[in-house]
Amino acid sequence: MSFSVAVIGASGYAGGEVVRFIDDHPEFDLVHLGAHSKQGGLLSEVHPHLRGGDRPLGSNDLDDIGEVDIAFLALPHGVSWKIGHELAERGTKVVDLGSDYRLDTNERYVDAYGADHPLPDELSGWTYGLPELFDVAGADRVAAPGCYPTAVLLAAAPLYRAGVIGPGVIVADCMSGVSGAGRGVKEALMYGAIDEGVSAYKVTEHRHRPEIEMALGMSGPGEPTVVFTPHLVPMQRGELATVTMPLRDELSTSEARDILRDAYEGRPFVEVIDQPPQTRWAVSSNRAFVTAFVDHHAGVVIAQGAIDNLVKGAAGQGVQNANLMVGLDETVGLPISGWMP
Amino acid sequence: MSFSVAVIGASGYAGGEVVRFIDDHPEFDLVHLGAHSKQGGLLSEVHPHLRGGDRPLGSNDLDDIGEVDIAFLALPHGVSWKIGHELAERGTKVVDLGSDYRLDTNERYVDAYGADHPLPDELSGWTYGLPELFDVAGADRVAAPGCYPTAVLLAAAPLYRAGVIGPGVIVADCMSGVSGAGRGVKEALMYGAIDEGVSAYKVTEHRHRPEIEMALGMSGPGEPTVVFTPHLVPMQRGELATVTMPLRDELSTSEARDILRDAYEGRPFVEVIDQPPQTRWAVSSNRAFVTAFVDHHAGVVIAQGAIDNLVKGAAGQGVQNANLMVGLDETVGLPISGWMP
Amino acid sequence: MSFSVAVIGASGYAGGEVVRFIDDHPEFDLVHLGAHSKQGGLLSEVHPHLRGGDRPLGSNDLDDIGEVDIAFLALPHGVSWKIGHELAERGTKVVDLGSDYRLDTNERYVDAYGADHPLPDELSGWTYGLPELFDVAGADRVAAPGCYPTAVLLAAAPLYRAGVIGPGVIVADCMSGVSGAGRGVKEALMYGAIDEGVSAYKVTEHRHRPEIEMALGMSGPGEPTVVFTPHLVPMQRGELATVTMPLRDELSTSEARDILRDAYEGRPFVEVIDQPPQTRWAVSSNRAFVTAFVDHHAGVVIAQGAIDNLVKGAAGQGVQNANLMVGLDETVGLPISGWMP
Amino acid sequence: MSFSVAVIGASGYAGGEVVRFIDDHPEFDLVHLGAHSKQGGLLSEVHPHLRGGDRPLGSNDLDDIGEVDIAFLALPHGVSWKIGHELAERGTKVVDLGSDYRLDTNERYVDAYGADHPLPDELSGWTYGLPELFDVAGADRVAAPGCYPTAVLLAAAPLYRAGVIGPGVIVADCMSGVSGAGRGVKEALMYGAIDEGVSAYKVTEHRHRPEIEMALGMSGPGEPTVVFTPHLVPMQRGELATVTMPLRDELSTSEARDILRDAYEGRPFVEVIDQPPQTRWAVSSNRAFVTAFVDHHAGVVIAQGAIDNLVKGAAGQGVQNANLMVGLDETVGLPISGWMP
Repeated sequence: MSFSVAVIGASGYAGGEVVRFIDDHPEFDLVHLGAHSKQGGLLSEVHPHLRGGDRPLGSNDLDDIGEVDIAFLALPHGVSWKIGHELAERGTKVVDLGSDYRLDTNERYVDAYGADHPLPDELSGWTYGLPELFDVAGADRVAAPGCYPTAVLLAAAPLYRAGVIGPGVIVADCMSGVSGAGRGVKEALMYGAIDEGVSAYKVTEHRHRPEIEMALGMSGPGEPTVVFTPHLVPMQRGELATVTMPLRDELSTSEARDILRDAYEGRPFVEVIDQPPQTRWAVSSNRAFVTAFVDHHAGVVIAQGAIDNLVKGAAGQGVQNANLMVGLDETVGLPISGWMP
Repeated sequence: MSFSVAVIGASGYAGGEVVRFIDDHPEFDLVHLGAHSKQGGLLSEVHPHLRGGDRPLGSNDLDDIGEVDIAFLALPHGVSWKIGHELAERGTKVVDLGSDYRLDTNERYVDAYGADHPLPDELSGWTYGLPELFDVAGADRVAAPGCYPTAVLLAAAPLYRAGVIGPGVIVADCMSGVSGAGRGVKEALMYGAIDEGVSAYKVTEHRHRPEIEMALGMSGPGEPTVVFTPHLVPMQRGELATVTMPLRDELSTSEARDILRDAYEGRPFVEVIDQPPQTRWAVSSNRAFVTAFVDHHAGVVIAQGAIDNLVKGAAGQGVQNANLMVGLDETVGLPISGWMP
Repeated sequence: MSFSVAVIGASGYAGGEVVRFIDDHPEFDLVHLGAHSKQGGLLSEVHPHLRGGDRPLGSNDLDDIGEVDIAFLALPHGVSWKIGHELAERGTKVVDLGSDYRLDTNERYVDAYGADHPLPDELSGWTYGLPELFDVAGADRVAAPGCYPTAVLLAAAPLYRAGVIGPGVIVADCMSGVSGAGRGVKEALMYGAIDEGVSAYKVTEHRHRPEIEMALGMSGPGEPTVVFTPHLVPMQRGELATVTMPLRDELSTSEARDILRDAYEGRPFVEVIDQPPQTRWAVSSNRAFVTAFVDHHAGVVIAQGAIDNLVKGAAGQGVQNANLMVGLDETVGLPISGWMP
Repeated sequence: MSFSVAVIGASGYAGGEVVRFIDDHPEFDLVHLGAHSKQGGLLSEVHPHLRGGDRPLGSNDLDDIGEVDIAFLALPHGVSWKIGHELAERGTKVVDLGSDYRLDTNERYVDAYGADHPLPDELSGWTYGLPELFDVAGADRVAAPGCYPTAVLLAAAPLYRAGVIGPGVIVADCMSGVSGAGRGVKEALMYGAIDEGVSAYKVTEHRHRPEIEMALGMSGPGEPTVVFTPHLVPMQRGELATVTMPLRDELSTSEARDILRDAYEGRPFVEVIDQPPQTRWAVSSNRAFVTAFVDHHAGVVIAQGAIDNLVKGAAGQGVQNANLMVGLDETVGLPISGWMP
């Protein structure tokens, strides 16, 4: 059984990773590569590292895409809602790697973006695609989570769900490699502006905060209040979430890790470990490393999650979702081993 | 007026920076370079970047040091207390860049190190050398703060002192360049283990946590509870503190920054800015950049401080302290401009 | 048809990459992981990024390895000759990633290492395993080339063979990522010694020079004289060879590239391009990028080759050799696409 | 005695470094900061690391600059010839860090740039400002060398002058940090395009090749033929030249280094060493490290030079020139010690 696949937005970093995974996927057949400004060029011009570089880049337009079984959308915010809706309406299974359909209500969308969603009634029709935490099997429309929410939720959600987190603010300080900022040409992303320095950005106003609060609250008791501060660190890939949460009652570090182990039993892409994870261990694979430490002095638990922002945080998780949407094993075509150094 | 100076532990990273600054200092005259395992070699063998590379490395022993006006100790933890005490007893002004005399009581020392201080009665005789927050003028024995406490305190202490911080846990997530881990040859500090990855370390158990709590509480109302999680990021230099603190009452971002501006008025080494600082801006200078953001959604203030861990976080602050100890202007011999890229 | 495989020296960088490729190989079955000082531990302790981390590390001893169809040796220089010989004698197909059997004569071995080979008569029994240039099909004992020779030869050998290179010195200036120096813990490989700097090493005395001269001369007219200067650059992976060779007669850049294209027609792992290759394009794949530029001003051709030193320069090329030794297609189990950023 | 100074093009990397040095210079008084697109802003907006960030950026126009004793031009190629000529004509001493007046004849200019110089008769009126090799004292118009020529010439010129280099091609393979490519916002200079990769660029066509040939030949026997291949390596600063030159007769490594030591005796900014230099040792200082190795196998000498491309390769050398132009010691206001890590 084989499925025809289109990648819309194939020229960006996440789109390139989707192409890489689909090329190695035994059941997916890549039939359309869509691009916007790079349309008309060759794949090798935007992704010289990929094989089959002589494949042409078509457009991101509905008519040009043709009938496909599955479409991956790797588009900037605000661009995927229309094409995603149209593709879904004509029967294509859609995995949106972008942010347009991640939030569950228009109210939350306004909180994150300061404006109404263009199709607010459609929001409820999309599944939030974090397969280790939410059921995706058989879904037709999946919005894959943001990279930061993926790292935060994999570490924190099992603890939150287990009821061990008390009232009070949850502090999620996160660190990302630069590819998380996309491939756009900006002064702030020049080598001379990034190398050998670290800084926070969008302090108090990053749009992933409402998404984290939504997803933590989706099955937990009540809705949490999260302070989310992202930092850009000088590396290409990798994302680390350090999530400090108030404890309701006494809890030991090993009890905290047992909660994580129970949550991910049998899930090949999440590994619970007994030390702080290094992002490098996850890079280039779809694997996440999570752990937790209880700080008895302060009465908090510090949960940590490490992923590759472009793989488990984007393209890999997208393919994992697609596998589940069509009834395949979630691991098909995806790397579990990473590589280092 | 000129002062004779010895640098004890000159072969490490911090010691090398002290040498660099003293070499350019118009009033300080470097007369002894002390080393342990590198004793007997030349300066150029350990610091090929420094001028005067043909100067010999003597020992760290009291007899070998001779009579000097000022001694800088750049030694590992547990090594400086003896030589520091002996030098001070014979009238040398001592700046200890290490951790042996930073904490004010034996009780706190036990909290940090799990054992009694070898000279507990001497602890009260040392001044905590963060000149922008505590008075150092004329002191004879100064323990310069740790690099992380320097970054955290410069950002957070003025807010804490001002009484705007409410009860509850303070979360200090910090990121450091690799030179902060010292020059020892360890597998964890190999290029292949550090490059392109980020991780936390010593979660819940880093010895700088008691130091931060002590210094925050030294002039503030009550004593705070701090969760301190340090992270190692792939860069040589620079340290960023992101400190999330509960607010007592409503406060605006501009009010928070005004508190910082008032605290540092007239101090040339601390600059209050209106955006998240990049550590790179501080690298190679003795300057710190601080700012604050109020998160009204969560009722917290996020204070940030960026420094060069080897300069304002160690050697530069040490020279700044020495200047004040002998009555000079605090800036003599120290760089205010950094460099980038 | 399935082949049992042992990896000897699995705890190093190259050994870890062999494990990664064998784990994904449809015809190879990994039955023994050998290690020296890490023996008795788990795979996850040395390679936390690999799946199946709970596999135990056995020894590198002949008795412990057992009967296997294929053995990969990823051992330091001077360690593989004995075990390699013994394994081969009992019928195991051996791929030696180390340097012990690369040179064809004892004389050349003495030139490179300054001492006699311990089994000089065996040297002629090993095939030099650079499959795009030399025939490996069906061989039982293969010595895979060094990383630098691979990059240099893929760029330069077709031009040398074609007879367009004139008399005179060939200058091979090469740049390598740090993983090429191995996983040993050394002061020179600390992050603080590598990051943000570049330097040459082993100038005039690197042992890869005789290997390059041997392989260039193996099918070309006469034997060339090569100046080989390796440089260490601050990156984990990747190797670039810039090879400046005197031209015999006039030649155009496009003619030079045509010679390269003819040489690699039908070979999936070598791509001839029209611009200077970026090492990043090859990283994590078994692909090499090569090109050539004619400098009419000086009468030279500048050939360039870019590879991942641990893949096409070691582990990947080893698996490629093994595929050919047992009659499989050379690409089985190996990545052609790399990844960036 | 104090000199008024203008920095034209203060918003770029080299311009920022000139400002840093002038701010610390006891005899130079910075009275005008000129910028083009950043005109009207504050210094802190383009160089947040520099002190005095509230200084305004004026224009690069002649009228706006006013009467100054010395002007530093840090402008792109093709922009400085006009303003440089006009300033010089009205009596200002001019140090041009750009390339407009480096070449000695229009013929050579055409070789490098493919077009006539706009003021070909003026070329002979400018001194080539590499003070360790050519006399600059008292000059009024100085064109500071390019960064690559500085590194190549400091290593190779004394050997060439000494007559030990034989006929044949000189191969200069050079590696530069990214700041050498300037501060312009380009896709090729994004972090995601640079980090963890190395590549050559402008192979056979870089404009520094004619400059190197000119300067080598200026006092040597005949004019050399140079193959110059620059490479971009993932670091902010630093430049390494590896120059392979045919030897005329037998020469030992120590004889080669003695030639270098004789050439630089008494010059504080050039250090001759006995090992391959690491660029990091020179970073942030005006110092160069040079060495040489004789390869008896091939009959060549490999000379190496390491500098900070923005300091000895641009801004620092510019200030060194200015010092000599007005009769000061060449070291005034310039750092000899660098810093690492």
